[in-house]
Amino acid sequence: MFQVDLNCDIGESYGRYRLREQKEILRYVTSANIACGFHAGDPGVMRETVRLAIDNGVKVGAHPGLPDLNGFGRREMKITAQEAYDMVVYQVGALQGFLSVHNETMQHVKPHGALYNMAARDASLAEAIAQAVYDISPSLVLFGLAGSELTKAGEKIGLPTAHEVFADRTYQSDGKLTSRSEPGALITDQEQSVSQVVKMVTEGTVISQQNIAVPLKADTVCIHGDGEHALAFAKYIKDTLEKHCISILSIIN
Amino acid sequence: MFQVDLNCDIGESYGRYRLREQKEILRYVTSANIACGFHAGDPGVMRETVRLAIDNGVKVGAHPGLPDLNGFGRREMKITAQEAYDMVVYQVGALQGFLSVHNETMQHVKPHGALYNMAARDASLAEAIAQAVYDISPSLVLFGLAGSELTKAGEKIGLPTAHEVFADRTYQSDGKLTSRSEPGALITDQEQSVSQVVKMVTEGTVISQQNIAVPLKADTVCIHGDGEHALAFAKYIKDTLEKHCISILSIIN
Amino acid sequence: MFQVDLNCDIGESYGRYRLREQKEILRYVTSANIACGFHAGDPGVMRETVRLAIDNGVKVGAHPGLPDLNGFGRREMKITAQEAYDMVVYQVGALQGFLSVHNETMQHVKPHGALYNMAARDASLAEAIAQAVYDISPSLVLFGLAGSELTKAGEKIGLPTAHEVFADRTYQSDGKLTSRSEPGALITDQEQSVSQVVKMVTEGTVISQQNIAVPLKADTVCIHGDGEHALAFAKYIKDTLEKHCISILSIIN
Amino acid sequence: MFQVDLNCDIGESYGRYRLREQKEILRYVTSANIACGFHAGDPGVMRETVRLAIDNGVKVGAHPGLPDLNGFGRREMKITAQEAYDMVVYQVGALQGFLSVHNETMQHVKPHGALYNMAARDASLAEAIAQAVYDISPSLVLFGLAGSELTKAGEKIGLPTAHEVFADRTYQSDGKLTSRSEPGALITDQEQSVSQVVKMVTEGTVISQQNIAVPLKADTVCIHGDGEHALAFAKYIKDTLEKHCISILSIIN
Repeated sequence: MFQVDLNCDIGESYGRYRLREQKEILRYVTSANIACGFHAGDPGVMRETVRLAIDNGVKVGAHPGLPDLNGFGRREMKITAQEAYDMVVYQVGALQGFLSVHNETMQHVKPHGALYNMAARDASLAEAIAQAVYDISPSLVLFGLAGSELTKAGEKIGLPTAHEVFADRTYQSDGKLTSRSEPGALITDQEQSVSQVVKMVTEGTVISQQNIAVPLKADTVCIHGDGEHALAFAKYIKDTLEKHCISILSIIN
Repeated sequence: MFQVDLNCDIGESYGRYRLREQKEILRYVTSANIACGFHAGDPGVMRETVRLAIDNGVKVGAHPGLPDLNGFGRREMKITAQEAYDMVVYQVGALQGFLSVHNETMQHVKPHGALYNMAARDASLAEAIAQAVYDISPSLVLFGLAGSELTKAGEKIGLPTAHEVFADRTYQSDGKLTSRSEPGALITDQEQSVSQVVKMVTEGTVISQQNIAVPLKADTVCIHGDGEHALAFAKYIKDTLEKHCISILSIIN
Repeated sequence: MFQVDLNCDIGESYGRYRLREQKEILRYVTSANIACGFHAGDPGVMRETVRLAIDNGVKVGAHPGLPDLNGFGRREMKITAQEAYDMVVYQVGALQGFLSVHNETMQHVKPHGALYNMAARDASLAEAIAQAVYDISPSLVLFGLAGSELTKAGEKIGLPTAHEVFADRTYQSDGKLTSRSEPGALITDQEQSVSQVVKMVTEGTVISQQNIAVPLKADTVCIHGDGEHALAFAKYIKDTLEKHCISILSIIN
Repeated sequence: MFQVDLNCDIGESYGRYRLREQKEILRYVTSANIACGFHAGDPGVMRETVRLAIDNGVKVGAHPGLPDLNGFGRREMKITAQEAYDMVVYQVGALQGFLSVHNETMQHVKPHGALYNMAARDASLAEAIAQAVYDISPSLVLFGLAGSELTKAGEKIGLPTAHEVFADRTYQSDGKLTSRSEPGALITDQEQSVSQVVKMVTEGTVISQQNIAVPLKADTVCIHGDGEHALAFAKYIKDTLEKHCISILSIIN
């Protein structure tokens, strides 16, 4: 019997600025990564989003990012490991505040955008982030790119760690995502997307662009909440996975 | 036998900007109010300051302020009660993150600057702040101006509440502080300062500028950590209070 | 022969956050108030918006606001006159940078949101803002609420000043806008809206909610660029004013 | 007859945070680089600093930085060339606002910190910055690291360009500064510092750490305004250069 978690980023509005997020996405996912105010989100948005996730029975995780609202946390910054540690503790704590209000605990932490990418390849940043999460609570789950420095660091320090895979991205033979600047980086065909996920979950492999079967752990699948077809795709992937006897379950349940 | 808490604001540096705070003040006080990143402080400064307070055996409190770094949280903003609630939850949570790292819990919450002043006189903001603190944890102590709307709101909701008094400010017959824009608002004579505190703690009264004995609860005294004579005064007030058989004790101990 | 300017706020997106502004509004207005980065807008958005206004032959003005992106500059802040002066000089200068690139000059300055409202009733802030605009260039036009402290301050210092009126708001007998919290503050009927403007422009009066004809100068009409019917209304008001032989002309032309 | 400009960074305080800058440095330098609010400085500080520079007869330049107050603009960020262009236009414009108030024009633009370093080695960023300065005004002087991509880009586009050298840093045989992480990067001996500058100005060469004479253009020398010995050193370098018959003159005079 197989199982997988579906996660999505949410709570990325800010003040008067409302992203056209589709809140209904929470019906299909099992884990929600909530922005913590550095790259997106503000205290009011965080409160509302935590509430929404709880009401939908979705597990809540912190989605800490670089302090760059204007760049939406997508521009890499040369930060030190200590700075990475500090900004994770701060943001995870802030979100935990809103969970405390509901006597709820946080399930996981998934770094956002450039911080996620930097932590995937830089062991020193990855270890600082894993340490921060561990220091706050060793029972928090660390979400990171499957097979990356971040999941390695999480496993090394003894955190429950979830390897994240992508339905709509192709992979290279070294297990890395094809860069968005390369041709064929995106999978636009729904059926192909879901087949890739089924294979990842049930066989632990992905077929690379070079047509090689690459081993890959798939604990959680990133689902997008924006875009026109987001809801339809979320429903489609959930239904199809279930048809393949894959249970959709949060990491902690 | 009498007792009182001595508290001071600390951790108000930001990035390269270092306030000339005197860290040694932590030897004389029993409670530290740590800035949480909105009016002052940043994740690195918060980490260092929490550590410093713990090392000195001083109880830690959150010092949430308005989102106005440029104005140091001293400019009043027309915020809603909901916004006050949200910014308190966020900032208290963020600081709690750094305490979790040390497996420590927070003792108290004391709003900063304009937020403190607004909460002292506006019942609706006061109630929102008290609610936020209560929702995070009903065992947190709420620090507010003695006899103000904020302490009232704290008591009403059932929070442990600490009435804060000032050694270096004179009072009016209605129990309010003399506005800084009025003559005689500040007490510059050390002996007079401490006498006022002794009277507040042991008799529960303060002599107003109009020479009337006004009842006042004095649970904690605000001690300044900046200024040339800060350390000397902190030592002086601590020693003098102890000579008057007043124990210097944190609120929770 | 009568004439009036139609102005609209624009350039209020920020980073990834795109407001659903209707750029086509620039076909109907003669003056554009461009956000300057404090309450909305960022350098990239400012560059694009300046370009768009120039391409549409619309005069450009600065729309400086309070430093409160999260509150969209709508929350009043207790700032000093000096702070108001400084933030206007900074923001007007920043926008002028983008105009310099096109060898264009700025037509006007219109404070935004809470700064606009505070300047309408507080003579000291109004004078500081008028002074800032005058010091940058005495040929800049100051836009302010018709008959307010801000237009008074502009006229007193010798700036060309444009009295701004609203098509969709009702007025009180003292010439002030009916507060949005009062019933009947908004005019939802298009025909009534435009009739009010025609009367203001051609007769220099507005009929107050109390049914009294109040004298009012109407140099420029505020047109909203957001909302479903914004474009249709902009076209309607422009066409109707022209049918009444009112020329739609920018202040400087 | 030789001449050189002495420049220093100034105006880097922010709100309540006051750097211990020594304003008297303005007696010894000929060009001041004023922070523009992104990495340091705020509108009030900019107004005061512009005034101070003018009062001291020092030429004013903009010192635009990355939008990173917490990191003081010292952390590299992956920005696009367009973003670099936009942030330079914005910040130069904002500072020009404060100069307009005094009917003064800006002499130069010198990027700050990480933006300066990135522009020194990245031709695409360098060209975007040079283009931004040129588009605002082709008579502005662009300050950049001597022999870097930034000075190259300035010269290519036709801007007056000033090559900046350092008194307290050693050089490599390729003309680059020795990285601060390398041994011997800093020159602490005052006499050696000034000798290096004299040689740069009069002979157009610097002796590298590898003991090779490297050609170098030296139009302006960076003088630090902070640190204990800043004033004494500024006076010393000015006096010594003059003794060597080198006139201390701003770039435009």
